[in-house]
Amino acid sequence: MAIKRIGVLTAGGDAPGMNAAIRGVVRYGLNSKLEVVGILRGWLGLINEELKPLDHHSVSGIINLGGTMLKTARCLEFKTDEGQKQAYQTVKRNLIDGLIVIGGDGSFRAAHQFYKKYNVPCVGIPASIDNDINGIDLTIGLDTAINTAVYALDNIRDTATSMERIFVVEVMGRSSGYIALQVALAGGCEEVIIPEQSFDLNKICHDIVEGNLRGKLSWIIIVAEGAVSAQDIAKNITEMTSLETRAIVLGHIQRGGRPTAFSRILALTLACAAVDCLLAGKADIAVGLEDSRIVEIDLEFATRKKDLPIDKIYRLIKILT
Amino acid sequence: MAIKRIGVLTAGGDAPGMNAAIRGVVRYGLNSKLEVVGILRGWLGLINEELKPLDHHSVSGIINLGGTMLKTARCLEFKTDEGQKQAYQTVKRNLIDGLIVIGGDGSFRAAHQFYKKYNVPCVGIPASIDNDINGIDLTIGLDTAINTAVYALDNIRDTATSMERIFVVEVMGRSSGYIALQVALAGGCEEVIIPEQSFDLNKICHDIVEGNLRGKLSWIIIVAEGAVSAQDIAKNITEMTSLETRAIVLGHIQRGGRPTAFSRILALTLACAAVDCLLAGKADIAVGLEDSRIVEIDLEFATRKKDLPIDKIYRLIKILT
Amino acid sequence: MAIKRIGVLTAGGDAPGMNAAIRGVVRYGLNSKLEVVGILRGWLGLINEELKPLDHHSVSGIINLGGTMLKTARCLEFKTDEGQKQAYQTVKRNLIDGLIVIGGDGSFRAAHQFYKKYNVPCVGIPASIDNDINGIDLTIGLDTAINTAVYALDNIRDTATSMERIFVVEVMGRSSGYIALQVALAGGCEEVIIPEQSFDLNKICHDIVEGNLRGKLSWIIIVAEGAVSAQDIAKNITEMTSLETRAIVLGHIQRGGRPTAFSRILALTLACAAVDCLLAGKADIAVGLEDSRIVEIDLEFATRKKDLPIDKIYRLIKILT
Amino acid sequence: MAIKRIGVLTAGGDAPGMNAAIRGVVRYGLNSKLEVVGILRGWLGLINEELKPLDHHSVSGIINLGGTMLKTARCLEFKTDEGQKQAYQTVKRNLIDGLIVIGGDGSFRAAHQFYKKYNVPCVGIPASIDNDINGIDLTIGLDTAINTAVYALDNIRDTATSMERIFVVEVMGRSSGYIALQVALAGGCEEVIIPEQSFDLNKICHDIVEGNLRGKLSWIIIVAEGAVSAQDIAKNITEMTSLETRAIVLGHIQRGGRPTAFSRILALTLACAAVDCLLAGKADIAVGLEDSRIVEIDLEFATRKKDLPIDKIYRLIKILT
Repeated sequence: MAIKRIGVLTAGGDAPGMNAAIRGVVRYGLNSKLEVVGILRGWLGLINEELKPLDHHSVSGIINLGGTMLKTARCLEFKTDEGQKQAYQTVKRNLIDGLIVIGGDGSFRAAHQFYKKYNVPCVGIPASIDNDINGIDLTIGLDTAINTAVYALDNIRDTATSMERIFVVEVMGRSSGYIALQVALAGGCEEVIIPEQSFDLNKICHDIVEGNLRGKLSWIIIVAEGAVSAQDIAKNITEMTSLETRAIVLGHIQRGGRPTAFSRILALTLACAAVDCLLAGKADIAVGLEDSRIVEIDLEFATRKKDLPIDKIYRLIKILT
Repeated sequence: MAIKRIGVLTAGGDAPGMNAAIRGVVRYGLNSKLEVVGILRGWLGLINEELKPLDHHSVSGIINLGGTMLKTARCLEFKTDEGQKQAYQTVKRNLIDGLIVIGGDGSFRAAHQFYKKYNVPCVGIPASIDNDINGIDLTIGLDTAINTAVYALDNIRDTATSMERIFVVEVMGRSSGYIALQVALAGGCEEVIIPEQSFDLNKICHDIVEGNLRGKLSWIIIVAEGAVSAQDIAKNITEMTSLETRAIVLGHIQRGGRPTAFSRILALTLACAAVDCLLAGKADIAVGLEDSRIVEIDLEFATRKKDLPIDKIYRLIKILT
Repeated sequence: MAIKRIGVLTAGGDAPGMNAAIRGVVRYGLNSKLEVVGILRGWLGLINEELKPLDHHSVSGIINLGGTMLKTARCLEFKTDEGQKQAYQTVKRNLIDGLIVIGGDGSFRAAHQFYKKYNVPCVGIPASIDNDINGIDLTIGLDTAINTAVYALDNIRDTATSMERIFVVEVMGRSSGYIALQVALAGGCEEVIIPEQSFDLNKICHDIVEGNLRGKLSWIIIVAEGAVSAQDIAKNITEMTSLETRAIVLGHIQRGGRPTAFSRILALTLACAAVDCLLAGKADIAVGLEDSRIVEIDLEFATRKKDLPIDKIYRLIKILT
Repeated sequence: MAIKRIGVLTAGGDAPGMNAAIRGVVRYGLNSKLEVVGILRGWLGLINEELKPLDHHSVSGIINLGGTMLKTARCLEFKTDEGQKQAYQTVKRNLIDGLIVIGGDGSFRAAHQFYKKYNVPCVGIPASIDNDINGIDLTIGLDTAINTAVYALDNIRDTATSMERIFVVEVMGRSSGYIALQVALAGGCEEVIIPEQSFDLNKICHDIVEGNLRGKLSWIIIVAEGAVSAQDIAKNITEMTSLETRAIVLGHIQRGGRPTAFSRILALTLACAAVDCLLAGKADIAVGLEDSRIVEIDLEFATRKKDLPIDKIYRLIKILT
């Protein structure tokens, strides 16, 4: 059965480049003689039948905007049988032959279940600032989020150097220290604390005090949000060293903003690949970039825990500080 | 007695444009046949005699850098008689005929006392991201800090709109809501909470719920750090409305960074004016911009509580939302 | 006769902050019980009756975008009697009681003529990156354009310093050297050439060669587009000094982009003032900021040649280099 | 013979990330018990014996700065036997056991010759915004240059859309259309002209006129500097279509500026790899990133003409517009 009409949705937390991905799906889809329907608010819009047809013009002027024009939501209803059933009825009623799901690991898990239960072909495009997709190098939005964090860090460094102070800066990363490691390396930071690895606060405080005696008075410690609270670390360092230490939580400023060139190009490229997959009758997979090549991976595999070469990067950070 | 050698220091929190001010003092001073001595770490460097002569080349390539090349520190010792005495001895020993003090209200209070006690001519250049100097429109660094906050807000808005969420964003301003009001206006925010004005959380929650019924689902509330904690407000709104609400504290990312054109030009202009004041035998004053003109104000007057046209801006914010 | 419905248009070259001004006119107008009609493509849309009613929601999410959602055009037809007549008929047919014209001196001249001929109340809001409006300090968009140019200059400085080269950088300013002077001052540039003042290329080359002997090898010269071509100056300097000299024309990158906080706040504030003027029965005027206060000036006066304190800024640039 | 002391230089045009590479060489080198000597002004400094020892502190605070702290120069003298001989004498006299050359294809050619003639071990680190190194994916600085160009393009797009105009934008790339293709794709541009591929201006003008009839009035055409002059193309389009067309040459603003996170991390990583190569007794090679892995390639191979998957990207650009 030939595919004629596809749906596209963005789910989970928004990531810079989602709009570029939507643009890619729509224009490449139209060019492949498909109709494209936008589904609002992720899975919730599929349940509630919030759809809008997307034409060439409807995705003009969005390539450089953060967020997502289709909006997104976290959706508990889709975890219920009733929610999935309603979503399926929307698919049937609107003659949607395949779904493109732009999001992170939670969205991919949902897509995988939906496919298994109702046999609706789903292809995932990894977009998330958590880099939580297994089997690929980078999610869409990650490059932007890392740059945003590094530029914020450059600002903080001005004060750290001028006031000769210690800062503990919390960056995104609930289960993964990937962002924290990249930011620490690119920001020239002195220390980094990540979920994948235990840390020794006594050792860190010892290093700080020893540095102080040598005349090294400013210090920036990156903390992945999933590892420990920046506030707690700052408080402990102050107590243990008697040196004034400030905590900063970068939080949501890392999530939005104008996507970098890389985030846009990755989004456009993967969007075209995803449409090609649906056209070729593929399902239950995600597309992604690995070692500079576009790969297709099973959705189930994509949501497994991802391994990172932590030790190597951590060692580099410590040597280069 | 003609002035031959002047000292320059930066004190209090660093502000973007301090380096441009140092450049202005040094090059304009040299051009006026003065010798210029940099004092490191603010008042602390005066107590500890940490000085370095500054020539034309020593301030090259700093006009666009945040922070301060002379470093800065908060200095409790200078509040003691002993500290002030040591500072005075440094002044005498190094034949410093006048001091240029780049900083905020705390630094100006210290300069005023130092002048009263030891008759060392001090001229202040207002540089602080708190806009805490009375009698002038804007401190150096403020324009940069407001832009940094507004651009961070643009990022947050992407998520607020895409996820249809409520955000409470805390910006700098311990005793003044000036930054909060400017950021709220320029960021198109829905509400702002400042120290100068009481707020009614019931009313805010009522507005949010009512907006929700009309379909207005995203909401950004700016909070000045001196008014209340963003964390508390977010928690309360979640409890009162059952709507997911996130708190973000911008914190030190507002303090550093490349100064805007305005912050640089203000810094350079005031630096020249400050040197002219010392040359003209003036003391115990600060220079500043008021109504587009450079004015001289008494240091004591400069540190009084500043009045702001709060009502007018607040009304505008509410109308334009 | 009470005003019930107003039109708003953007004309001439686009400037960052025009969208914020439109937002201000619409929301403040609606709050004042007015209907607001957007006119597309400036005067051309008035001739061709390209209108669209603007409600509260239609100006959401534009405060931080460059360009103008109403589009703009240079319009020769409006200089003819026939064009103006058609425009007037659009005004009558659509019961437009007053016009708000967002633009520069050309747009203000057109508004003034239109008022004189057909008695349609026009109020101008100065938005232009040329700062070509007399009687006020700054047009909307100027602060953004200057920052864009200064940040581009910071980039160029990296190469000028690293490769020890001479650069001639052309910035906007057809009849005024205002931008050039601000950019040269904030960028720490060595020389500036503006339309208001003759220049001596022999002297400049002499300074360069002399600097070279002292070891000063990099040099940035700012040129206002209205003064002379950067290309010609670079060529002449190469010929006269045998030193490699590069020309860069910043051009249209100075025109677009996200408006700064100041450009947005100025736009919003003047928009409200302009609506108030129409409500108060005023006409043939523009609103603007002078010495930190909102003023009203006659449109005819606004389009006269503007005076600038050139000598003072130029002297500062030369001293601080 | 064990390596004890290495020299590091930056040559050719500066690229953002060169400073991060220097930091990496110095700190990783010191950590490997090497002495590191900085050579000023590229090969010229080797000829003129302009050296300075680099310690841990000497590379503090440069990771986020554009340009190169070692300065760079194009050096004709090094193409002569006499120049090379003097350079070799500097190497001998200063007991330099190996050279790390940070630069583009010209610098690598020079390093290859120097090695062949005098047997001085040279390892190259590819840093150039031209992406002119064969056998690797990306040079240091390229990601930054592309982002700078794309962000400038976002600004230009504001005016192109608001004024409904055609723009021809010239980006870097003397022999390669790589940057042009990336910028056109990420910027959502309508057309791109590159050196590797002939273009049909009649066809382009036909598309523009046809688009105009459909209501598509704004158009951005990217031109690689090596293909044709933007000025000429703009002039021709104006003549052939009678539509106002503007040319913009981005030029040197693409070269400087704060490096992106990716440019910094690539620089640091390759710097460590290069030091490891010298320590392992390797010579006449460059290190680089290919398919996400660090590879070593012969210097001679690195300077051969590089192949790009032009057709695929070009096809994507045309589909997605």
